[in-house]
Amino acid sequence: MADATAIDGRSIEQFLEDTNERRRAAYVDLLRIPSISALPEHAPDIRRAAEWVAGELRRIGMEHVDVSETGGAPIVYADWLHADGAPTAIAYAHYDVQPVDPVGEWRHPPFEPTVEGDRMLARGSSDDKGNLAILLQAAEALLATRGGLPINLRFVFEGEEETTSEHLEPWLAANRDRLAGDVALICDGGFFPGNLPAITVGLRGIMYAQIDVRGPFQDVHSGSYGGSVENPANALAQIIAALKGPDGRIRIPGFYDDVAPISEADREAWARLPFDEDAYRAGLEVDRLVGETGYTTLERRGARPTLDVNGMWAGFQGDGSKTIIPGEAHAKVSCRLVVDQDPERIFESLKAFVTEIAPPGVHVSVHSLGTGRPTLTSTELPATQAAARAIERAFGRAPVFMREGGSIPFVATFENLLELPVVLLGFVPPDGNFHAPNEWMDLGNFETGIRATIELFDELAALPR
Amino acid sequence: MADATAIDGRSIEQFLEDTNERRRAAYVDLLRIPSISALPEHAPDIRRAAEWVAGELRRIGMEHVDVSETGGAPIVYADWLHADGAPTAIAYAHYDVQPVDPVGEWRHPPFEPTVEGDRMLARGSSDDKGNLAILLQAAEALLATRGGLPINLRFVFEGEEETTSEHLEPWLAANRDRLAGDVALICDGGFFPGNLPAITVGLRGIMYAQIDVRGPFQDVHSGSYGGSVENPANALAQIIAALKGPDGRIRIPGFYDDVAPISEADREAWARLPFDEDAYRAGLEVDRLVGETGYTTLERRGARPTLDVNGMWAGFQGDGSKTIIPGEAHAKVSCRLVVDQDPERIFESLKAFVTEIAPPGVHVSVHSLGTGRPTLTSTELPATQAAARAIERAFGRAPVFMREGGSIPFVATFENLLELPVVLLGFVPPDGNFHAPNEWMDLGNFETGIRATIELFDELAALPR
Repeated sequence: MADATAIDGRSIEQFLEDTNERRRAAYVDLLRIPSISALPEHAPDIRRAAEWVAGELRRIGMEHVDVSETGGAPIVYADWLHADGAPTAIAYAHYDVQPVDPVGEWRHPPFEPTVEGDRMLARGSSDDKGNLAILLQAAEALLATRGGLPINLRFVFEGEEETTSEHLEPWLAANRDRLAGDVALICDGGFFPGNLPAITVGLRGIMYAQIDVRGPFQDVHSGSYGGSVENPANALAQIIAALKGPDGRIRIPGFYDDVAPISEADREAWARLPFDEDAYRAGLEVDRLVGETGYTTLERRGARPTLDVNGMWAGFQGDGSKTIIPGEAHAKVSCRLVVDQDPERIFESLKAFVTEIAPPGVHVSVHSLGTGRPTLTSTELPATQAAARAIERAFGRAPVFMREGGSIPFVATFENLLELPVVLLGFVPPDGNFHAPNEWMDLGNFETGIRATIELFDELAALPR
Repeated sequence: MADATAIDGRSIEQFLEDTNERRRAAYVDLLRIPSISALPEHAPDIRRAAEWVAGELRRIGMEHVDVSETGGAPIVYADWLHADGAPTAIAYAHYDVQPVDPVGEWRHPPFEPTVEGDRMLARGSSDDKGNLAILLQAAEALLATRGGLPINLRFVFEGEEETTSEHLEPWLAANRDRLAGDVALICDGGFFPGNLPAITVGLRGIMYAQIDVRGPFQDVHSGSYGGSVENPANALAQIIAALKGPDGRIRIPGFYDDVAPISEADREAWARLPFDEDAYRAGLEVDRLVGETGYTTLERRGARPTLDVNGMWAGFQGDGSKTIIPGEAHAKVSCRLVVDQDPERIFESLKAFVTEIAPPGVHVSVHSLGTGRPTLTSTELPATQAAARAIERAFGRAPVFMREGGSIPFVATFENLLELPVVLLGFVPPDGNFHAPNEWMDLGNFETGIRATIELFDELAALPR
């Protein structure tokens, strides 16, 4: 822990211990708000979450608190700019969460936060309200005990990350003046398998599309019409099966054209990571890990593109039997992309290929549901090294520099639009069921994450400008 | 119309005209009961429909009316056995209906019968409450005007036809004594495309199965895990795609071993049928009919087996995007079968093949949801010829002898268990959206169907015993 001379007479550590119960209650309050950005009926909850965050920012002493309208979910902005001569960090997190279905698989209602041992179960407990609450509580501890922050800090809290961050880039562009800074801290990352502290230096991009297959004008009797009309569900299965070979290679022409090969140095570095493949496999409860031939699991996750069906539906889904040929069939299909794949180009290639292989007798269309660019940053950035020192001091172990399989499309926006170096970090457990039932946060990570964030602000203050 | 000396002084035709409004109201009453056999929550409606039918049978003068318990939906039995020396017919229909989803595609609520022009729209208006109501109203007209029937008649009305007729065969076996007869009239058939009168001489069998694919223990993040774990939805698509080739041939080993080839005589007879393929295609709103290479549409429908996905589901089905790998994926798959395919053997072959082709990293299981044998009867049966004469007299046109693509598994039971010749007929329009939204009955067919049924009873009375 850094220098702990506190204006209220307490050390930061003492403050954190004294306020433990109240801080936990605040985190739970935020988790109770079902701020699901994908579902229009939750728009009031999105706004409620934004107002809750703004209220907390005011309470802890942040300034210029602004629930800023975007045309979609508001962006909550606040700053504290009194660290003369110190660098300015822009810290990002998001207050929206994923949908909760299949809700029947949750052990507790997703918006009734429940502690199980050292875990907090709730939708968003990790992604990303966990990281957001850590930022708030780190700033609160500093402002309460020292009366100020060691750096200038701007918070940018978004409410559309789980959809497409549609309004973030225009908002960043429109507010470029009040976003002057030296480094962007994207606090939407997590730990490495085995719950090892990590800094994310690579993110995959994404291309997300929907394939719609239409056959007869509606569901028709499979006895009367079976054998004379193409079945949209069979046709869809045929299309999806053709997208990837048994070797795990994606068969869309040109798909791999811009994929950077993995360097020998990276291969060797990843092979040295303390990755327990068998524990990872057992955690998923599968009898075998499967992926593209010729690559290790970490290589596939970090540096190879994928194609996955995220959802698929057609015809009768109830109990028992209904003898129909579905009138239509649908699939949501997404690709995780790596440098230097262009998501828009990949979408066009997918669309062209699906159209080409669609069987006769059905009408097939493909539309985009969003794209995001892959990113890769250097481990040698001063801010990244500062974060590594802060994390090592708080957690007692140097972080892994990892390439994450997920996608945070706007990371590239911070780099390119605001021309800031980006450090992507966060304290959520790697197997925290993000986007899935029974999402959980490790409460040890949460508390130590607050300490690491305070260390990080102090480390950034010490960097040469 | 046959001899019409009426005990109440009216001809049958006059009776039918006089009672038109009341008869329509009775049909509507039956259609209002949501007797969906597939859904347990509708069990009270099943019983209500059975009681309604029993009440009608008593009202019109049928005897020994019995709502007979089966362990499932009751079978409604009634008879009238005073035609000394005349043959005895067993007339079957069913009072249960298919589920109504997707309910949003109905123009009117499915259990609020609505007349549009000469069509009655409601779930079950055709299949099979239309045919059942025709039987009731034909018997009513004869009993009311002549004071009796020309033949001995037993009604057997079932309430589980749309699931698997699970209790019908045991009930028929247990009640064999009170089911003595000379012919079975299975009134669950319909007309030929173009709304041409028809008698069905062939029915396809059916094998209905569910394929369940399980991957990771639950839905997991497609970024974190994509590329390292097999996706159950992709695996399911791969399995389904492998079941059928682009030539429409089913690839399950041994699938065609017992398929009887189509005779030259049948091919020629079907080629002469007044089948308007373009109108049929346009009615389905597809730009091309598709099926097994080397066969005409009528040949495929009547004499070739099929494999269709009836339903399929996995992962996220909502609006927008959710970036998950589904924990499981499911499909309902059925085959229509032709003589001499054995449905049980086909199920075992499917199961073995799916197990063989399942990709590694997922767990695949296949279970049966029901089977039914294909049937084929001679057009030369005296009862079939009697039905043909009756239909021609009422509708002014000889019926088509058709092989229907659908399946009525218990037809074989009537033939084999009760050792009765079977005539399969009915008056519902061929494009009446059975099992689909906006099911409808042609009201002209309904009224003329009553007359044809009366003619049929008179024709059967005249057959040599």
